[in-house]
Amino acid sequence: MASEPPIIDIHTHVYPSSYISLLRSRVTVPYLLNPSEKGASPRLIILPSDDDPSLLPGSRGRPIDPSYTDIGVKLKFMSDHRITASVISLANPWLDFLPPTEGLKWAHMINDELESTCSRHQGKLWAFATLPLSASPSDIVTEIDRLRSLPHSRGIIMGTTGLSNGLDDPNLDSIWAALEESKLLVFLHPHYGLPAPLYGPRASEYSHVLPLSLGFPMETTIAFTRMWLSGVFDRYPELKLLIAHSGGTIPFLAGRIDSCVQHERHFPEHTDENGIKSRGPKRSLDQVLSNNIWLDAVVYSETGVKAAVEKVGQERVLFGTDHPFFPPLDEGAEKWASVETNLNAVTSAQDKAGSRAILGANAIELLGLEINPREGGG
Amino acid sequence: MASEPPIIDIHTHVYPSSYISLLRSRVTVPYLLNPSEKGASPRLIILPSDDDPSLLPGSRGRPIDPSYTDIGVKLKFMSDHRITASVISLANPWLDFLPPTEGLKWAHMINDELESTCSRHQGKLWAFATLPLSASPSDIVTEIDRLRSLPHSRGIIMGTTGLSNGLDDPNLDSIWAALEESKLLVFLHPHYGLPAPLYGPRASEYSHVLPLSLGFPMETTIAFTRMWLSGVFDRYPELKLLIAHSGGTIPFLAGRIDSCVQHERHFPEHTDENGIKSRGPKRSLDQVLSNNIWLDAVVYSETGVKAAVEKVGQERVLFGTDHPFFPPLDEGAEKWASVETNLNAVTSAQDKAGSRAILGANAIELLGLEINPREGGG
Repeated sequence: MASEPPIIDIHTHVYPSSYISLLRSRVTVPYLLNPSEKGASPRLIILPSDDDPSLLPGSRGRPIDPSYTDIGVKLKFMSDHRITASVISLANPWLDFLPPTEGLKWAHMINDELESTCSRHQGKLWAFATLPLSASPSDIVTEIDRLRSLPHSRGIIMGTTGLSNGLDDPNLDSIWAALEESKLLVFLHPHYGLPAPLYGPRASEYSHVLPLSLGFPMETTIAFTRMWLSGVFDRYPELKLLIAHSGGTIPFLAGRIDSCVQHERHFPEHTDENGIKSRGPKRSLDQVLSNNIWLDAVVYSETGVKAAVEKVGQERVLFGTDHPFFPPLDEGAEKWASVETNLNAVTSAQDKAGSRAILGANAIELLGLEINPREGGG
Repeated sequence: MASEPPIIDIHTHVYPSSYISLLRSRVTVPYLLNPSEKGASPRLIILPSDDDPSLLPGSRGRPIDPSYTDIGVKLKFMSDHRITASVISLANPWLDFLPPTEGLKWAHMINDELESTCSRHQGKLWAFATLPLSASPSDIVTEIDRLRSLPHSRGIIMGTTGLSNGLDDPNLDSIWAALEESKLLVFLHPHYGLPAPLYGPRASEYSHVLPLSLGFPMETTIAFTRMWLSGVFDRYPELKLLIAHSGGTIPFLAGRIDSCVQHERHFPEHTDENGIKSRGPKRSLDQVLSNNIWLDAVVYSETGVKAAVEKVGQERVLFGTDHPFFPPLDEGAEKWASVETNLNAVTSAQDKAGSRAILGANAIELLGLEINPREGGG
């Protein structure tokens, strides 16, 4: 088994104990609800729609079990799935909801806890840190600078709201500048989805399917497109963005987005150094996709992996699991179907070298991971 | 040139004179606005966001020129792009906005006008008709039945709102039944997009880019997914749906949608005739995609065409142009870049036989088009 290539999971979430205590201290979304039924798991209420008073407390949101909080459970999951190393990140909604003065304190505490967890599992765990986005830009930059002192920190995870006006907000510029300078990878991840009325009067019959399968990737796509259109990559050409769920829908819609931009008279035409005329941001969508963007391979289909690889290149797609979400519904299952689907999608879409790159080598190279060679095969 | 394979355009819109007179008679969206500037084109105001009172009348919405209304302009466009035949359809928002008692009258008038236009250009033009969706289901079924008497009618075009509650509304059942029975293809097309706040405070700087490039395909994806989840294809297994813009984002998200469904405990598990267990609609997403769904190839990228072909099959993807939308901004252009992009996407993504199928043969077979053989090469 020593010759089996390493598998690195770059999309895997944790709720460290400091974050759980934060959620436990709250009574509005997001918060942790203790059902009155004896022996019932606490419920995680992270979306306003989870906080449905028409449901019994034991049916609201989702149960939070040890897979969310106990790193031992994640390590067991990694071993079960032959995952060599994981880059863990706080799950949504991160610290978006905090009062401005509280952000920095909590980011500090959570990032230190992640660092300490990783340092106890050398060669197996690294982290994407969390930013106090409700705080002032200078507080946020302070935390970005501090992350350099955390040896296992390899990037930051963030949602789509930025400082509350989205990722095309010019007030984010000092933050993009600090992230670019620090060379930290920005893991862009959805949380807010789309407004519930879009799902119609029968939405509750479909439970979480529409918000998770459509709302999440659409939110991500809109956030990135706004970011590109506002010229963030023109101003910060070295910014590195890893986009969740294979970019939401970006690989499929990139052609349409670009065509709409090139047919929009409202955008002035400009000419590049090769004399090519175009409209929209100076750095074209194709240039951004092949220079600034990495995509995870959490797309659950061969078609999705192929589209992702075509748009950003084989060396820019990275395996992930989305653990602890999407566990098997069948209690006895040893391997998770959600993980196997993504693994098989990669190996069917790619030849051996491509699979090796996406499953592990790309992440090792991009993030500079020094994995334990004896554990190469898990 | 006689050996050049035929090109059929199944996504091409018209505003027949009856519809223009309808829009001219209105003062609320959708309507036709005559700017006071001398010689200025009337402006088409079809979306609430087009009706922006902060803009001069000559800048609101979009100019409506003869390409929208004069079939001669479309025939010239077809000839310029070597398009053998076109299946024309009324552009959005169709008749969605009419008072219930007016729908049938207008549908009748517009469908007859389309029929008459097609009959004057035998072997070159066919039509997708329009339904009076604001009318009663029985009126709608009456019009569906009447369409059988129109020899050039090959399907109907419709938006995503159905009778106003979306395409998962059980009140649509008599309409799906009539469409299934009539064997008319349902061309599902977006119009309403997503709520403007999703595009953020800087949305106006991006003009139409976000609503057209993201809102449209996301609206389409949500509409279809709700339709599938509600069991429409379980109840009407012969229903045939052609989905605009290569299915919005369905080919890319199908894996994620299915994974979310299979991980949703809320859906009871069922077992099919082969003993395979699954959740969600009896007819799986894959089964629906490969039996009930056709996609146009209006996706502006090789990646998009490949994903569409992988998900529904090469024989179910059909070339289209979206004419008269996305004209060249460069006045002197002979060929439209938007059309060339979609043509090249097909020929790069597919071998010769595949391109031939997608560019024309699939539409000819599916819709039973008897094209003029002398015009096979345009």
